[in-house]
Formats: sequence, structure tokens, C-alpha cells
Amino acid sequence: MPEEFEELSPSEFFWRHKDLAGFTNPMRAIYGTIRELVENSLDAAEVHEIPLKLHLKVTRLEEEQKGEEGREETLHLHIEDNAGGISREKIPNAFGRVLVSSKYRLRQSRGLFGLGGKMALIYGQSMTHEPFTIRSSVGKRNPIVEYTMMVDIEKNTPRILKRRRLQNPGGWRGTVIDLTTRGDWAHAKQKVVEYLTNTAIAAPYASIFFEDPDGAQYKFEPVTTDMPKPPTETRPHPSGLDVESLKRLATATKTTNLPTFLCRQFQRIGPVTAKKLLQFAGMHPRKDPHKLTREELIQLTNSMNSFTDFKAPEASCLSPVGAKQLEAGIKNQLKPAFVTTVARKPAAYSGFPFIVEAGLAYGGEIQPNASGKIPIIRFANKIPLLFDEGSDVTRKVVDAVNWRLYRADTTMPVAIVTSIVSTRIPFRSAGKEMVADRPEIERELLNCLRECARQLGRYLSRRQRAAYDRKRLDVFEKFLPKLAEFSTRLAGKSKVPNINPLLKAVTRYQEEESSEEES
Amino acid sequence: MPEEFEELSPSEFFWRHKDLAGFTNPMRAIYGTIRELVENSLDAAEVHEIPLKLHLKVTRLEEEQKGEEGREETLHLHIEDNAGGISREKIPNAFGRVLVSSKYRLRQSRGLFGLGGKMALIYGQSMTHEPFTIRSSVGKRNPIVEYTMMVDIEKNTPRILKRRRLQNPGGWRGTVIDLTTRGDWAHAKQKVVEYLTNTAIAAPYASIFFEDPDGAQYKFEPVTTDMPKPPTETRPHPSGLDVESLKRLATATKTTNLPTFLCRQFQRIGPVTAKKLLQFAGMHPRKDPHKLTREELIQLTNSMNSFTDFKAPEASCLSPVGAKQLEAGIKNQLKPAFVTTVARKPAAYSGFPFIVEAGLAYGGEIQPNASGKIPIIRFANKIPLLFDEGSDVTRKVVDAVNWRLYRADTTMPVAIVTSIVSTRIPFRSAGKEMVADRPEIERELLNCLRECARQLGRYLSRRQRAAYDRKRLDVFEKFLPKLAEFSTRLAGKSKVPNINPLLKAVTRYQEEESSEEES
Repeated sequence: MPEEFEELSPSEFFWRHKDLAGFTNPMRAIYGTIRELVENSLDAAEVHEIPLKLHLKVTRLEEEQKGEEGREETLHLHIEDNAGGISREKIPNAFGRVLVSSKYRLRQSRGLFGLGGKMALIYGQSMTHEPFTIRSSVGKRNPIVEYTMMVDIEKNTPRILKRRRLQNPGGWRGTVIDLTTRGDWAHAKQKVVEYLTNTAIAAPYASIFFEDPDGAQYKFEPVTTDMPKPPTETRPHPSGLDVESLKRLATATKTTNLPTFLCRQFQRIGPVTAKKLLQFAGMHPRKDPHKLTREELIQLTNSMNSFTDFKAPEASCLSPVGAKQLEAGIKNQLKPAFVTTVARKPAAYSGFPFIVEAGLAYGGEIQPNASGKIPIIRFANKIPLLFDEGSDVTRKVVDAVNWRLYRADTTMPVAIVTSIVSTRIPFRSAGKEMVADRPEIERELLNCLRECARQLGRYLSRRQRAAYDRKRLDVFEKFLPKLAEFSTRLAGKSKVPNINPLLKAVTRYQEEESSEEES
Repeated sequence: MPEEFEELSPSEFFWRHKDLAGFTNPMRAIYGTIRELVENSLDAAEVHEIPLKLHLKVTRLEEEQKGEEGREETLHLHIEDNAGGISREKIPNAFGRVLVSSKYRLRQSRGLFGLGGKMALIYGQSMTHEPFTIRSSVGKRNPIVEYTMMVDIEKNTPRILKRRRLQNPGGWRGTVIDLTTRGDWAHAKQKVVEYLTNTAIAAPYASIFFEDPDGAQYKFEPVTTDMPKPPTETRPHPSGLDVESLKRLATATKTTNLPTFLCRQFQRIGPVTAKKLLQFAGMHPRKDPHKLTREELIQLTNSMNSFTDFKAPEASCLSPVGAKQLEAGIKNQLKPAFVTTVARKPAAYSGFPFIVEAGLAYGGEIQPNASGKIPIIRFANKIPLLFDEGSDVTRKVVDAVNWRLYRADTTMPVAIVTSIVSTRIPFRSAGKEMVADRPEIERELLNCLRECARQLGRYLSRRQRAAYDRKRLDVFEKFLPKLAEFSTRLAGKSKVPNINPLLKAVTRYQEEESSEEES
């Protein structure tokens, strides 16, 4: 009995295996739906440098008791932004075709797979069989177009049910999505609010208004009018490339010799570096990249991977959250007694530049960790990651730090905030909740957290010394007056000498000590 | 500046985002490669009821020191099985095209996505640019064909470099794969051996021979000649379906009225249940399924989801590991003092039947858990899951059990083994290491573990009581002779009475107590 083989379209694949895209249960389904659509708006706003105004409303259509497994309800989602809009001919594929995206490039963005937003629509459609509506305009003199659509999941093609063209006298620009879906709102609510709160930290320019099914309203006001510089596309960094990638570049290039090819296709390679690299690889500079044999391609790849003279990747294409922003977020959310933030220099894995930043907070309103697990607030390309911490590289690294080396331990009232930005975050699932433990990222995170821990260690040591001196001073303050009085009487005098200068001397000593520690 | 949209082929998508398929670093890459190919052989053996003989050899081609990040080496993999073989015209797509599979059906198998084996080949190709070789025959009078191939990743099509036809006088049947790849063997080694050991537990009929790059040989001999019954294809269970699935069935069916449609397309629906269900849904039995309106489809889906009179899904299509097998595996690997296993009845999520089994072991050679995390050995469709436990539903449930209710706590020397089998395991990543927390699976796991915990509680209580009685007996044994001697002297007699019957009475009492506890 021979086996029958069958082929699936990408949308059929992800619809069947919705868990891969993060739609693992009714709670995660509605959470994921909101998240993916909000992130699309944020990406559009940042590309077009538009201070985002986002309006999100979730309405309950029908409630159903499902007993032990939690409630599942039919919900309506309305999301409206003032970002770039999508030109009308691109709308059907942009919303009705999986693995189609404007984000498949070397550029930092929240979106990455060309999957999440469409999964939100496909999920809603498969649970309710309701079409969804997209209304969009790119502004100025362009009309507003409205598509009522479904996805033909088996074929991975958009199915347009209705198309309308609306007047746009005001030159409105933006996108409005209306969809019906199902989810467990009761359990998702807190996570959605946490998600929006953390999103606001990483996108301080955004104005987000959210109304939940119970009528509660949440407003996140912009705290700055500065937009981050728009993400720019970049060329790959030469270190960490695989043969397949190099071969593609060598096939596609219009250059006809290796030095020009290297300078043109890669960042951080100029004529001098190109010459050095080719010498290192033992390859002739006159060689045409199109004529590289398999062996030469392998040789060049290996040489690029072991060549140590490349400059670190350029960071101009990356837009990190920023130490200041992280610190403000930590102070605002955690209200600690001490906070330190560290931003690492750009590094690269597999040719993709990335930057790691972290903050460490201690004391204040932070509670001791009874569980012995230091809580982590994670961001990846400014997306707050609220689930699946256990499989994220950050948790692995935080647990690997030997906190005792820094006078700290994991049961102390400490909390960590981390941010990774990259032209390609190596997510471990299409649901984008866990970052893979790529060795290069692991190392950067470790160094970043160690630096934070050193700062904490200094703070704790200072505090310890201050506490010790305070104690000593207390002893002096308690006994010196008595000693003075007693000595006065013993000497047969009546006027007790002034002990304040003595006490001050001790205090001054203490001050000196801590400022010395500071330097 | 309008956004440019781009479309990716499935293989291009997964090659770019190899982390999604579990290829997150050089260690996981070689581990995943071996795993996926071994699982393909096991699936083929079980479908064709062939006692598997598997020969796996990893050879080192070239070693490279990569410093802090671990070693990465070029490795050659040779894997040979005696399972069904693949007919020659199907080989190119079966190995050179992502999202093509013989496993997209309602049938229990290790493979699920039509992705893993091909990712192993694509990864190797992209790292080394070496083609791979497939040699296969379906046996009897069929020749052996050998393909030397690569994958055109951008197009998702096989690229055949060479095709050979070999004589097959012996009627050999099976598949041989040779591929070159890169990986961090030093770090993967222990995990690969652990994987093969646990695989042997779940496939006790298999003979596995493995030779590693250092020349070490591992033999896993079959401990039974009984093959599990081959997985059979099943119809969906009516509970948990979504509208999209129902609509597809209603469109494709050849039946022309609802009762026949329901009986024909679903398991657990006979004429009586069909009638009841249609009454419950308020739908006319004469209705043609092809003519269901959108509203009627939704109405029928909702009714099927809230109808409580379906029998539990039939388990005949599932092949669980088995309580006996789990217990043998636990005893063999963990050497505990106590072990209990529980197999739950079949249940269903989203129409997919599944069975949960678990074993709980205590004492013996198991060490106390200093970390407070009970160790778990996980299986899903007989695949040992060795990574990413933190995001698996099993870890969530184990941590949610209130162990103190059962006289246990998480620092005790306990260990847990779980197995989930299903026609579709809801994996959370295409790397197949974490099972999603579908509420229905979560509930079954919880009930299963609670039952195990109750057994452990009884054992611990019995042990406690036995220890108490032992203590009491010790006291009697120590003082009774003295008491007897003293009384004898006091009474002026010389012959000390026999105290053994008295001691026996106490002992008997203890025995009674524990056997009472047993019942």
C-alpha cells in the first residue's frame, strides 16, 4: 500500500496548525488577534513617521458558558489607525494571502512573517464564518476603498465579496479593520491591558485608545512628539552568513569582480577590508562572483565567518528602545529604589545586526521573589513578550547569571527589563513570544546583565557600608554624650565639652567612603 | 512612498526562519536533523508494520573551533532503514518540497507538518552547499532508485542532479539518506543519546544502531517482536469543530440529507444520535448539507459544540505507549522505589481524539529536587520531547498540582513521565518540542496526574504508618524481654514466658493495617 502524498497551501498549513502562530486556546486567540493588528499599525506608523493614533474597540456579540474550560464568546473587533494606509490594489493580497508581506527585508519591524495579521483574520473567519472588512486610503487625493473579504484558506487566495469606493474629501489616511472572532475575553483582558501598557512604553509617541467589551476605557497618551527615526533597510553584515545566502548574492549581483561585489553587497566592507579578506581567503580579486565554483563559495563563506577584522555591524538601521526610555518605564511600572540600565554595542548573528539593552531594578515597591525566579519584562523589536518566558533566551541567561558574585540573590526584590532589537529577531515560534538562544545573542545578553549586576552590586555594597556607618554613628551618638558627661564629672569640671565636631568627623568619614565607592 | 509587498515560498519562509522549525543553534540543528529523520523511519515502520532496523552513522568531516559559542563542525549523516520505502516518482517531492507530506491525515504519527525532514535537508544544503542522496525501493521486484538532489529553496521545488537505477535482486526495501550538514556535535551528543534511549522506550520493537563521530557505538535491541497496530485514519469527532471545517465537509459530501451526512462524516454519530442532535439544533432532517446557509452552518456548529450526548471519541485509531511500557521505561531509567501509572480514557479537542497517560515514580535512585521543580520525561505521539519544557502544557499542569494534598511536595525525590497521543498533537512550534495548553488536554493531564498523586499519597501514608509500626515494634522488642524477665523475677519464678506470640500479634496488626490501606 503506497503512501499518498498531499500538498498544503501556506494558509491551510497555518490554519490547521494554528498553535504554531500562537492561537493555542480561546484566551491566546483573542490576545493574539489584538496584538497582531496593533503591531501592524505601529509598524506602519514608524515607517511613515506618523505619530500614531490608534483606536481599538472590542464588543461582545454573544456569550457562551463553556464550563471548566473558560468562557468563549463571539467578539467584534474594530481597529482604526492614522498610519500609512495601503493602496487599493494591494489590499486583497496584504490581508487575504499568507506569506505575503512588505516586511521581508533587512529592516527592523515588529512584523516579520507575513502571517500574524492574516492568521487573526483566518481564525475569526473559521470560527464565525463572518467576512471581515478593510477600509483604507493612502490619503491626499486618493479615495477610500472598502473591501469585504474572506480568505480561501485551501487555496491561500483572497475572496472579495464586496468592494466600495468612498469619497475622501478630507484626505483621510489610515486603515480600519472590522472583524468577528471568538475568544475568552475574561482571561485575556488583563494580558491585553498589560500588553498595551508595555507597548506604550516602547512607543511613547503613540496615542492609544482602547475600549473593552465591558465598556471600560483605557487611554495611553503620547509622552513625546518625537518619532523614532524610520527603520532603514540594510545590507547583511558579512559574518555569520551561510553558503546559500552568499550564493544568492553572487548570482544576483551586477558586479563583475570580487572586491566590488563584497563592497556593494555587504556592510562594513570597504576596499581595504575586501582586499584583506580576499588575501585571507586566498582568492583572486579579479574573479567574477558569478563564476565562483561550489568549492570557492564554501571557501569564501568559511573565510568570511572566521575573518576577525570586520567592524561591528552598523546600528544606524536599528532603533532600540533606549536606556532612558527603559529606565522611565521601569520607574513608572515598578517604582524601585534603585535602577540601572545598560545598552550594549551592536553585534550580529548570521549577518543580522542586533542590539541588546537591559535594566535592573531593586527594592522600592518590588517584592522579594519567593519563587527564586527573577521577574523579567521582555521586549523584542519593541514588542512586549508576555507569554512563554520559560523558553526564551532571556530567562535562560538570567538564570545562568551567578547573582551571588554581585552580592545579590534571586530571592531579593529585583526585576529585570530586557530589549532586543534586530533586523531579524530569531523568534522560535510564529506566535512571536520566545526568542531563540542564538549563541551570539546569549553572549550579549549575558554581558549586558552582568554589567547591570555589577552596578547593583556596587549599590548594595554602598548601601551595606552606609548601613554599617549609620550603626556606628548611632553608637557614637548614644555613648559620646554620656562619656563626655562622665569625663566632665570625673575631671571635676562642670561644663560638658561640645561633641558635635567629633560626630561630624565620623559622618564626614562615611560620606567620603561612599563617594569613593561611587568613582 | 508606498510599501512593496513580496511573497515567499514555504521553503523560503522556513529557511529564513529556521528557528521556527527548531534549528535555533548549531547544537539544536544537528539534534533536529537526526530526530526528524529517525522519526520518519519510525512512522514508516509503523504504517507498514515492519519491525524497524535503523542504522545511523554520524561522521566528522571537518572541525572548527568557534570559541565561546561552541564548536561547529561539518558532519556527514548516513541513515538507513528497512521500512516501507518510497516509490520512485514520489521521491523528489517527498524530499525536495516543503508542505508536501503523506501525514496530513487524521492518523497518529510522529510526523505532522511535512516540514522536519525537509528542513534537515535544506539546512544541511544551505550550510554546506552539498547535495543529498536518497536511495529507496518499495521492495519485491522494484528496482532501487538513487536520487542526488538539492532543493530550490526560493521556488520550493526539488532539483534533481542525478538519478540512478540499481538492480535489486534481493528485493531490498527501505530508504537510505546521506547528507552533509553542520552542527555542534560536542553539545548535541548527550541529547542525541538521550533521545534515542527514550525513543527505544516508546518503540520497543525497533532495533537501532548508532555510531557517533568519535566511533562510540550504541545498540538498542528490540525487547518485543509485537508491532503496535498500524495507525488507522479516522473521521473527526463532532465536538470542537469550527465552522470552516464543517463547511468543507458539507461542501465535499456526497450525501444529500443531514442525518446521513452526520453519520457518514463523523465518528460517534449513528442514526439515533443524529436525530437527537438535529432536534437539539432545531434543524430539519431532510435538509441537504450542500444547501446549508451560513447561519445554518453556524447554528449546526454551535449545536455540535454544546451537545453533550456524544460518546467519547473512539480510541481504536490511537496507539498509546501503554501503562506497562511506561512503567518498564521508568523502572529501567530511574530505578525508583515506587512507581504508579495511569492511562486516561480517550478525550477530544477540536474534534481530534487524544489519550493522556502518566507515570509517577518516587524514591530509590531518584534524587530529591533541590530546585523544587519535579523532573518530567515527556512523550508526544511517542516522540521524546527533550527541549523547551518550560512552555509545554505538561510543565504548566505539573506545577499547578497541589502536591501537599497528597502528602508530597516538589522537593521530594519524585519524577513524572507523561505521554500524549493524538491524531493531531497541538505542537506550539514546528520544531515539535512543546505541546500547547489546549484546555481539554490540560484537564486530562491534570486528572491523570492527580490520580497518580493519589496513588503516591497512599504509598507515602502506608510507608509512614509502616515506619511508625516498625518503631513501635522496636520498642516492644527492646522492652518486652526485660519486662518479662523482671516480672518473672518479681513473681519468684525462674522460667521467663515466651513473648514471641505477643510480638507477633503486634506485627500482625501492622500487616492488617497496611493491607487495609491497600484496598
